[in-house]
Amino acid sequence: MTALGIDLGATKLSLAVFTQEGEMLVKKTLPVHQLSGTPVADLMISGIHSICEQQEVQAIGVAVPGIYHQQDGTVWAPNISGWENYPLQQQLRENFSYPIAIDSDRAAYIMGESWVGNARGFAHAIYLAVGTGIGAGILVNGKVLRGAHDIAGAIGWMALQSPFKDQYINCGCFESMASGSGIVKLAREYLGQQSSYNGLLAGQDAELISSSGIFEAFEKHDPIAVQTLQHCIRLWGMAVANLVSLFDPEIIIMGGGVFGPALKFLPDIRAEAERWAQPVSMPQLILSPSSLGSDAGLYGAGHLAFQSLNTTLHVS
Amino acid sequence: MTALGIDLGATKLSLAVFTQEGEMLVKKTLPVHQLSGTPVADLMISGIHSICEQQEVQAIGVAVPGIYHQQDGTVWAPNISGWENYPLQQQLRENFSYPIAIDSDRAAYIMGESWVGNARGFAHAIYLAVGTGIGAGILVNGKVLRGAHDIAGAIGWMALQSPFKDQYINCGCFESMASGSGIVKLAREYLGQQSSYNGLLAGQDAELISSSGIFEAFEKHDPIAVQTLQHCIRLWGMAVANLVSLFDPEIIIMGGGVFGPALKFLPDIRAEAERWAQPVSMPQLILSPSSLGSDAGLYGAGHLAFQSLNTTLHVS
Repeated sequence: MTALGIDLGATKLSLAVFTQEGEMLVKKTLPVHQLSGTPVADLMISGIHSICEQQEVQAIGVAVPGIYHQQDGTVWAPNISGWENYPLQQQLRENFSYPIAIDSDRAAYIMGESWVGNARGFAHAIYLAVGTGIGAGILVNGKVLRGAHDIAGAIGWMALQSPFKDQYINCGCFESMASGSGIVKLAREYLGQQSSYNGLLAGQDAELISSSGIFEAFEKHDPIAVQTLQHCIRLWGMAVANLVSLFDPEIIIMGGGVFGPALKFLPDIRAEAERWAQPVSMPQLILSPSSLGSDAGLYGAGHLAFQSLNTTLHVS
Repeated sequence: MTALGIDLGATKLSLAVFTQEGEMLVKKTLPVHQLSGTPVADLMISGIHSICEQQEVQAIGVAVPGIYHQQDGTVWAPNISGWENYPLQQQLRENFSYPIAIDSDRAAYIMGESWVGNARGFAHAIYLAVGTGIGAGILVNGKVLRGAHDIAGAIGWMALQSPFKDQYINCGCFESMASGSGIVKLAREYLGQQSSYNGLLAGQDAELISSSGIFEAFEKHDPIAVQTLQHCIRLWGMAVANLVSLFDPEIIIMGGGVFGPALKFLPDIRAEAERWAQPVSMPQLILSPSSLGSDAGLYGAGHLAFQSLNTTLHVS
């Protein structure tokens, strides 16, 4: 039995066929950039057709970069223009007769890790995704936490430092400082405060500073890069601590584009979390990198497909 | 059908008989103070005998002031000496043949409110208990969130303000500033910083300052009381925001001894939370007082008893 997992991002669409054991048989990636609205769904539909011509699949799972509203089958994807309330489920159902399941990317990340990655065997597991934005996929008793309106896990909005600042309005306190884009904003802020600074990040136009440039400068002990990433380590540690105190999980996986280069800070993040978190729960936590890297969402979508198949089989 | 609910606190033991519809038929309260270890369980056992001589009950539910470990039936209650790992389930089973269910007080609070209080009808509901300590009872899809080690909901440990201070070591950042005892510590700290202060809290020995005294002084616009409670409003608001962003609940109930007098701040707490929280989830939240007051745990214990009965009946 095989299923098709699809991971839709703001810049690319990945499709892969999986066995029930989680083996990836075929993978295909298509560029999404410059597309918006229905053409994004059309790209997905033609991608599915093209895969299904070569491979038999029994179900389809889709991870979307935003919120999936289970009740009406619509998607809110902030980085895809025209996808404020996009009827993806209906679009796919009109084109395919397979069982189809859709969920948010952060839900897919933890489902992927739970299926074949580092969270395998854990019923209480969290994937903290730190990329351009920040979100968390949360498993409670083996099930994805959805909340009342499918928005649970919006940890980028976590309040970690008062008083409130205007820079938190658009994407939340935690994300505004400790996401990929937050790291850059933070470094720029520190640069603006230190007119005497003449380090590695000084020569370039502030607009050109990137998070990867900051990680490189950190390796060379650049003071602005060190100050920036030390602040982020503190925030990542506080966020891990708050997840531990609230959810008492077995494992937290640090993933997304920033982890990546920030994985070397895992011991420092753990040390910071240990200062803040509930002291019985924290020592029992496994703090782990992702084992699936940028494919976590794709694996999660594959698992979602098999889950929909099980549900359908049980119902019929 | 009737069941017995028991709410064990550090100073008193309450017992009540409930109908299946949540009506309280009989209530009895016994003092616990000065007791420790097995005599606390003995008091509970004699209380149960004395109730059961007069009333027929089919099951027993117990709320304990700490952590209940489901797997081995033991209780960790930090304010009852000798209850570090107390085998309460075994003690009760040796004395009674009724189905017996035990859980933490914070789990009982939200179960009580969900049964007959303000959280009735909501599957995603949280009880934020602010008393001497701070904890949260969390319902996810109608079930209490337990976590991997029964410690979920330890929100008193929530990190809300860096850098870390030594005063957070014993009970966590949030609890150290915004619990009943935290309010007093905070006021003392502010008093120590303002040698020119000559207000309502100045005359008395710092050791005699109480949270109720601070609430009274707030009514008379005392600057230390205002500064203290405004700081707490900010922290309570941030905590509500973080629960909203992570859990996306339908309702959060503010309860415990402090809410109580702090209920008049509910609009201010909501306003603070609205600045921080995920902006789609927050407007849909109901922020509510407890409707069961100090009986929330007792009602929750009653509901726990009926649940154990249902489980038993289904099994047999």
